[in-house]
Amino acid sequence: MARKILVLGAGKSTSYLLDYFLSKSVTEELHLTVGDVDTSSISSEIAIHPRCQVIELDILDQASRKEAIAEVDIVVSMLPARLHTKVAKDCIAFKKHLVTASYINDEVRKLDSEVKALNLVFMNEIGLDPGIDHMSAMEVIDRIRSTGGKMLLFESFTGGLVAPEDDTNLWNYKFTWNPRNVVVAGQGGAAKFIQEGTYKYIPYHKLFRRTEFLDIEGYGKFEGYANRDSLWYKDAYGLQDVLTLYRGTMRRVGFSRAWNIFVQMGMTDDSYEIGNSKGMSYREFVNLFLPYSPTDSVELKFRHYLKIDQDDIVWEKLEELDLFSASKTITLENATPAKALQQILEESWTLGDDEKDMIVMYHKFGYELDGKKKQLDANMVVLGENRTHTAMAKTVGLPVAIATLNILNKKITTPGVQIPISKEVYSPILAELKTYGIQFSEFQVPYLGYNPDSIAG
Amino acid sequence: MARKILVLGAGKSTSYLLDYFLSKSVTEELHLTVGDVDTSSISSEIAIHPRCQVIELDILDQASRKEAIAEVDIVVSMLPARLHTKVAKDCIAFKKHLVTASYINDEVRKLDSEVKALNLVFMNEIGLDPGIDHMSAMEVIDRIRSTGGKMLLFESFTGGLVAPEDDTNLWNYKFTWNPRNVVVAGQGGAAKFIQEGTYKYIPYHKLFRRTEFLDIEGYGKFEGYANRDSLWYKDAYGLQDVLTLYRGTMRRVGFSRAWNIFVQMGMTDDSYEIGNSKGMSYREFVNLFLPYSPTDSVELKFRHYLKIDQDDIVWEKLEELDLFSASKTITLENATPAKALQQILEESWTLGDDEKDMIVMYHKFGYELDGKKKQLDANMVVLGENRTHTAMAKTVGLPVAIATLNILNKKITTPGVQIPISKEVYSPILAELKTYGIQFSEFQVPYLGYNPDSIAG
Repeated sequence: MARKILVLGAGKSTSYLLDYFLSKSVTEELHLTVGDVDTSSISSEIAIHPRCQVIELDILDQASRKEAIAEVDIVVSMLPARLHTKVAKDCIAFKKHLVTASYINDEVRKLDSEVKALNLVFMNEIGLDPGIDHMSAMEVIDRIRSTGGKMLLFESFTGGLVAPEDDTNLWNYKFTWNPRNVVVAGQGGAAKFIQEGTYKYIPYHKLFRRTEFLDIEGYGKFEGYANRDSLWYKDAYGLQDVLTLYRGTMRRVGFSRAWNIFVQMGMTDDSYEIGNSKGMSYREFVNLFLPYSPTDSVELKFRHYLKIDQDDIVWEKLEELDLFSASKTITLENATPAKALQQILEESWTLGDDEKDMIVMYHKFGYELDGKKKQLDANMVVLGENRTHTAMAKTVGLPVAIATLNILNKKITTPGVQIPISKEVYSPILAELKTYGIQFSEFQVPYLGYNPDSIAG
Repeated sequence: MARKILVLGAGKSTSYLLDYFLSKSVTEELHLTVGDVDTSSISSEIAIHPRCQVIELDILDQASRKEAIAEVDIVVSMLPARLHTKVAKDCIAFKKHLVTASYINDEVRKLDSEVKALNLVFMNEIGLDPGIDHMSAMEVIDRIRSTGGKMLLFESFTGGLVAPEDDTNLWNYKFTWNPRNVVVAGQGGAAKFIQEGTYKYIPYHKLFRRTEFLDIEGYGKFEGYANRDSLWYKDAYGLQDVLTLYRGTMRRVGFSRAWNIFVQMGMTDDSYEIGNSKGMSYREFVNLFLPYSPTDSVELKFRHYLKIDQDDIVWEKLEELDLFSASKTITLENATPAKALQQILEESWTLGDDEKDMIVMYHKFGYELDGKKKQLDANMVVLGENRTHTAMAKTVGLPVAIATLNILNKKITTPGVQIPISKEVYSPILAELKTYGIQFSEFQVPYLGYNPDSIAG
């Protein structure tokens, strides 16, 4: 009898996930149900597959949600993170396993003892970031420890970027995922991390000026800025004694310095609405953040306010966005500055139909072995194939899919609300990901500790 | 029979308030009850006054609060603003008038119809700022309008500073009021105002670089930075058509530029705790916000990070605070950066026993009369007498006291939850304040509109 999988949410990131299940549906005897409130974006290839059923499902409609969950063996939730709690509670009620790519929220975390008592696996944070980062990092950390090494440093960076062949603008950036998350990235509190045993805090308005550089052979130079909270990984990865702990986001070199201009201006603020935003020109929008002058141009005020030299390349980056246009207008009513900025950026940074994305990940592992300090760097590059089969969908969807099958096949058996940091979980998944071209290159490098040359703001 | 006044809260700002009532207690037949949870700070002069009774009162204890309120004719609440709601509801229950120096909160605002139905006066925002600012501004605005003038511009600045004779540090600043409010000033959202018909928004991290200069004859030059929301005054003052609306805080010139250093570093952040703050040296505290370096000093990293030239005067301002001391330590556990900074500043900026404070207020009124643009500037300086009889206590306490007596004497009769913007209220109060030396000097100046020279960041 076929094992039944329910996939909730059929958004952007599910192409590889659904393909994986359907490609194995015969050999693994799988039956797939895909439920979404809007089924129109699901490709006909999937919809007509004999082992697949597509249902229209409003996740907030309790009766239909419970009915769908009751009928299957395992639930995969690709819904927005805030909706996972309801799904998780139903999974307990009907004794079903659950897999998600999202961060565990506190309510789901509290279900751990119930989940264990029912011998269920609730696997979370098993996409890209979180997901592949956890697995690939723990694989190396466990390996270092198994040879007697003591961890000293862990840094980890991830970026969703545009593939080199389609990297055609001055920002070396296009939106390959949720634009809103990019616009408000880094907000909500100071970034916290540890460098050489010392806690460090960076306020939002300095975040994009405290980058460090990273090289990936064949792909050139990148930069990383700090994520909000790196300290969480101390406990999760057992790195309580580590001297340096830093998590960051990767961009092409120069992006952060230019992005900082929006931050300094206050254009990324999402906390208040501009009453008269609709119909406002980009130029008027910019002028909201500049002092009044009866004589000076918006451009001159802007350059003066942010002390931008006339030959500074960042200026061309701003002009490329038509930021000073008096004819292009904001079309949103009561837009926050962040939403207005997002509209301006989407006009320039939307990935074209034929353009491909790229995922990069970079880990640094510093450790002491036999009295010597050593460092291992590991990095991964994944390129998208097309607009639906993106590198993002691949790196998020495949780990979720593989984990789901491994739970069904009892290769993952330890029950509880968990993330993929145990060998039982990550080893087979990382091995299978390699067959799809998702793999890390490792380099033994001199131990740098925290390299002061890379931190000059 | 004596009229009974209940004063809730006998903190710093009540010296003049209580003196006023007691000095008039015979002629005006007043009896005063002063209630505070801690009565130890109340001077014996007041405590033994035959027309005064001091009671220990926990405002959160409903029974004693109601008992105290039931017995009097009018309640003056000098409590923290958040406690006013309970008091206001009791005042309705027992049909008592209420006077406070705080901003009206939404819950109190909602009581308006009940207050009107009972023919009660709930007078709020009748201290200094808010208070004297409302009254003095509306007096001029009403005068301009009564001659046919049309308001074009209103700017208003207030500052609590140190008196010139005790202005002895490089910051030209000492704490004369709640230090915490000074440390977190400007946080919680972008500053909003209107300049020449255009909305303007300044994010917190730019606030202290967008100052404008103000001169007061005999007292020299000041600077003003924008308060959070100037737009509120549009409706309150009937300034819907005004082209420029700006409210700000006054400091001595150079303060804001130096203060901006703390903002840039992230030292004013009150949103997270530093786990190991207790026993941390000032130097270690500073280093939390700087990149790690195995070789460079905290001073060099600091200068480099904020691009402070070696001969910049702001550096001496920082050294004056012992900011780089390796021996002085933070004594607070789990301090937020803002709390740690406050401790450092309090060590240098606490007003001495013999030192005096100073209140400054500066209004600009731009208007059109007979087809010509005109401008009237008005400013006020009040000096403190000693440590209890401060300029702050005088300018907050006297308007509250005078308003209270005017309500008792039926000079203020219009009922409702209100602020002092009607002629009935402000005229007699401003006239009486003059007899205490609280008065404005007015100067007809050329209409400048918004002077672009003063806004260069």
